[in-house]
Amino acid sequence: MSHQATLDHKLALSLLESFNAQGTLMAWDARLTSITPGACEISLPYSASVSQQHGYFHGGVIGAIADSAGGYAANTLLMPVSECLTAEYKINIVAPGAGDTLIARGKVLKAGKNLVVSSAEVFVVDKGQEKLCAIMQQTLFVIPKAESRI
Amino acid sequence: MSHQATLDHKLALSLLESFNAQGTLMAWDARLTSITPGACEISLPYSASVSQQHGYFHGGVIGAIADSAGGYAANTLLMPVSECLTAEYKINIVAPGAGDTLIARGKVLKAGKNLVVSSAEVFVVDKGQEKLCAIMQQTLFVIPKAESRI
Amino acid sequence: MSHQATLDHKLALSLLESFNAQGTLMAWDARLTSITPGACEISLPYSASVSQQHGYFHGGVIGAIADSAGGYAANTLLMPVSECLTAEYKINIVAPGAGDTLIARGKVLKAGKNLVVSSAEVFVVDKGQEKLCAIMQQTLFVIPKAESRI
Amino acid sequence: MSHQATLDHKLALSLLESFNAQGTLMAWDARLTSITPGACEISLPYSASVSQQHGYFHGGVIGAIADSAGGYAANTLLMPVSECLTAEYKINIVAPGAGDTLIARGKVLKAGKNLVVSSAEVFVVDKGQEKLCAIMQQTLFVIPKAESRI
Repeated sequence: MSHQATLDHKLALSLLESFNAQGTLMAWDARLTSITPGACEISLPYSASVSQQHGYFHGGVIGAIADSAGGYAANTLLMPVSECLTAEYKINIVAPGAGDTLIARGKVLKAGKNLVVSSAEVFVVDKGQEKLCAIMQQTLFVIPKAESRI
Repeated sequence: MSHQATLDHKLALSLLESFNAQGTLMAWDARLTSITPGACEISLPYSASVSQQHGYFHGGVIGAIADSAGGYAANTLLMPVSECLTAEYKINIVAPGAGDTLIARGKVLKAGKNLVVSSAEVFVVDKGQEKLCAIMQQTLFVIPKAESRI
Repeated sequence: MSHQATLDHKLALSLLESFNAQGTLMAWDARLTSITPGACEISLPYSASVSQQHGYFHGGVIGAIADSAGGYAANTLLMPVSECLTAEYKINIVAPGAGDTLIARGKVLKAGKNLVVSSAEVFVVDKGQEKLCAIMQQTLFVIPKAESRI
Repeated sequence: MSHQATLDHKLALSLLESFNAQGTLMAWDARLTSITPGACEISLPYSASVSQQHGYFHGGVIGAIADSAGGYAANTLLMPVSECLTAEYKINIVAPGAGDTLIARGKVLKAGKNLVVSSAEVFVVDKGQEKLCAIMQQTLFVIPKAESRI
């Protein structure tokens, strides 16, 4: 039981250390708001730094947050021993990113030894209402975890 | 001939005005480095704001720049009358984004009345050498151009 | 009430007529096994005509059945007035297609005036057990329904 | 030099044996019309077995042929020692498959130890004129070649 607690603690530290080392996500003030085995939620507040020409969240930002949510969902099953890099992703934007917050929820569909397949749904929150904004599918490949800086 | 020149000037202004209104690209210091009918090149210097945990360009940023290059390639055929929004894109990252500059070259493959299909290649420049980093396919839908702010 | 029944009957006839006119699906002996508004299930028995070199369902067949399931899910909302054509799809194969039957379940995620976004899950049935085999995302565009042959 | 010829002969045999073992492609009368290192061309005659409801090539068939062309392009670099399975593919259909022959040309963009990324262009030939019909991107994973049946 205490072993499990130690493992979970190491995993959580490893995930947060990795997330906080992502300059792109830090510059946007993105937050890791939920982690469970095989799943991950990231939220992103609206700002000029994530906007497109009409004042909505940029499609490329929506893709980047979905990519990150799927990747960290995979990392919950891989870290602290291994981690993953994105091989490819595909995103359909089904509604404009009009709102004050993006919430991306990623989950693992298949965890293989070398490849992980994840998906994510992205919601945009406007006046407290969540609306489906985008869906993503993704392939990640597993690599040994680079040495921790902690 | 002078009519054509006027049209080109309006088109170029319209493209630049739209590009410069994209807060995401401005925050990254992305530049529109080439425009020809049906094609577009964007370059992006490396900075902490576009990095991932290993110090490379973030996969989501690579996707966002490819998405933008394909979209502005489409806009060269649509503006100033119409413009496009991203319906979907898919990107394969074929090499780590390790270098000082990303260059994304987008081109239109099919321009329909309602839909445009574009593709893009993304190169990473390291010590002056361009290396293929990612390939993208994309569907855009055409909307009337929102009123200019100029 | 009788008006509604007539409408549903016309819709069902329209869907079946279209499905049965797809030579590819007929040659494979694919069946439309469930239709509800915005959703569709197709099942496909294994045969040499849908196999690859190891005796599994061919990856291209898995994609074709997923594409069809997403398309007919959209058609439940469009026919008999309109119908749809595939603009693009993307499929991740997460397990080999090893079994005696493929079951593809498509559903509509967003139905717009000109574009519909669908997704599908494909399961392979082996000794009575369903196993997730593939996931798909897709964009369809809406066209007026060609005149019925009935 | 004679060693190289022997190797090429073994590779060609291995490719043809694998292609001819694909029941799906055989049922359609698909042909491997060109092979060079890292590239492959497949052609497919129109028939009821590859049609959709309007008498064009079925979108799922277009995807299956593109998938096969990308896969055999990869196999030219892998066989007879290894071979590949499709992890995922994404296809944009840019024009209806209206014509008498489909020609898919696949090529390898990146050949890694475990993953290969390929792309393909699909053309439809109508009255002797080739027209771009679809574009595809794909990820394949490398596996040891199953024992030859020859």
